[in-house]
Amino acid sequence: MAFLPDSVEDLYLGIDGGGSKCRAVITSEDGRVLGEGLSGPANPCFGVERTITSILDATEQALAGAGLTPEDKGRLIAGVGLAGVNLPHLFTAVNEWRHPFLRMYLTTDLHTACLGAHEGKEGAVIIVGTGSCGFSSVNGKTLNLGGHGFLMGDQGSGGWIGLQAIRAVLLAADGLGPQTVLSGLIEELLGCKGLSMIEKMVDAPSRSYAKIAPLVFAAAEQEDSAAIEILKTAALYISALAQKLLKTKPQRLSMIGGVSMRLLPWLDATVAEQVRDPLEQPEFGAIYFAKQQIQDQQAVQKNQHETAS
Amino acid sequence: MAFLPDSVEDLYLGIDGGGSKCRAVITSEDGRVLGEGLSGPANPCFGVERTITSILDATEQALAGAGLTPEDKGRLIAGVGLAGVNLPHLFTAVNEWRHPFLRMYLTTDLHTACLGAHEGKEGAVIIVGTGSCGFSSVNGKTLNLGGHGFLMGDQGSGGWIGLQAIRAVLLAADGLGPQTVLSGLIEELLGCKGLSMIEKMVDAPSRSYAKIAPLVFAAAEQEDSAAIEILKTAALYISALAQKLLKTKPQRLSMIGGVSMRLLPWLDATVAEQVRDPLEQPEFGAIYFAKQQIQDQQAVQKNQHETAS
Repeated sequence: MAFLPDSVEDLYLGIDGGGSKCRAVITSEDGRVLGEGLSGPANPCFGVERTITSILDATEQALAGAGLTPEDKGRLIAGVGLAGVNLPHLFTAVNEWRHPFLRMYLTTDLHTACLGAHEGKEGAVIIVGTGSCGFSSVNGKTLNLGGHGFLMGDQGSGGWIGLQAIRAVLLAADGLGPQTVLSGLIEELLGCKGLSMIEKMVDAPSRSYAKIAPLVFAAAEQEDSAAIEILKTAALYISALAQKLLKTKPQRLSMIGGVSMRLLPWLDATVAEQVRDPLEQPEFGAIYFAKQQIQDQQAVQKNQHETAS
Repeated sequence: MAFLPDSVEDLYLGIDGGGSKCRAVITSEDGRVLGEGLSGPANPCFGVERTITSILDATEQALAGAGLTPEDKGRLIAGVGLAGVNLPHLFTAVNEWRHPFLRMYLTTDLHTACLGAHEGKEGAVIIVGTGSCGFSSVNGKTLNLGGHGFLMGDQGSGGWIGLQAIRAVLLAADGLGPQTVLSGLIEELLGCKGLSMIEKMVDAPSRSYAKIAPLVFAAAEQEDSAAIEILKTAALYISALAQKLLKTKPQRLSMIGGVSMRLLPWLDATVAEQVRDPLEQPEFGAIYFAKQQIQDQQAVQKNQHETAS
């Protein structure tokens, strides 16, 4: 801890919350990283209270890392990007939180991921983590694709890949699909055999299914036909998502999330060659978002003032 | 109510319980129908208590129909076929119920459906209702296929068809799948538009998805390509299930469940032509099951008696 922030300086908090984890970063006004934090799930689809707990937990870690106390939350200008808040009732539920920050600006994790990936500039991103979705922001116009959740959407994501793997194992057990090395691999991971796999997974959250995804990539490397079929289908959807985003002519397209790098070689080649590394993480995108919101508000106030005088 | 059962005669209760409803029938020993009942869901996957409530509700209706009182439950020899009890912990949970019947014999809804379809004889059945599964019993050997639940299995079922329909609507909304008349049909059924469809359905049980299935058949009749694709995929799975069952060489194969008759014309022709009408309903199969269990027990006792003397 070389740097101790001035006690009057504004501090920025960036939050990136998703189905598996919540990341926090605190920076000074000029962008120096003061502290970071990592906590549990922060997707309000699975509980607004749990989301808030995860945000506070990650924030307090970041404050401690910055040599600050939990009471310094009141000095933080927070940009918060969360999965799930594309659904209006969840946006409202989180936005009505009586948060302890100086100010809080809430948007989707897609939006902050996109701002992070392109250093605060416009562009497009595809997230392939526990869930999947796409986002582009070009000339002030935004496009949201996918992100419809584990049951109804999220094709190509880690959760989706894991679920398809279990389905493939159950089909193989019935002799209605090809035999697959996934059977042994998943039984070993879950520590159970045959139908008890269903009992173990039936109420599991999507992040538990996402833990199975690496086994599918491993099985595909062993030329397992069921695994290859799953990854081809995943790549087909993500490639289509990318093509749709590229039609908005973003300056850059990035892929982020735990599954993205492993899925990249499976994508349509014309898509894969246009994917650029993300420049900064989503939690930094959340800080860009907060700063842009403040600038926009100041511009509006200045405008109102000039109109009035 | 012409017939009043003799107060000393054994009475039989047949129960068929699934994800959507529970049927009860009471017969005399020689098979005359005395009363029938119909109640709510009785799949212990969704709650053992609710299942028991549904069984008792349907039973009391049947007792009333037979001119008997709720106290006459103690005269009933119950055969009970339930979805979900292929999972050992659910079988145990229901079987340990301190039931009010004279005796209770529990098995899967597949087993009792099969006995009903073939008038107590061996054979094979496919159930395509809220869920889907297959069963054959030939020369004392049984084969269970599918029935792995809404999330991980149940391909081709009403719930599965409904879920695919919602996925197709969401893909169409993103421009990642063909436009489909299902969008308007489902919005009308659910009374909501666009993304609010996800909020409405995300925690809904599979039987709520199964209510969408008729719309998919209707859309397919209008040559809707998304609907046709869903039904072709459903039929592919059910045809494969049937072919697997036919390999056990059952004397008869029947299809039952709310979706079966509508899906039949979509099946592989060589499969479809081998499907025979079920002769009796599953609740009557449950009574065959109870009677067979009693006969088996008597045979064992006679055998032990002869061995001892």
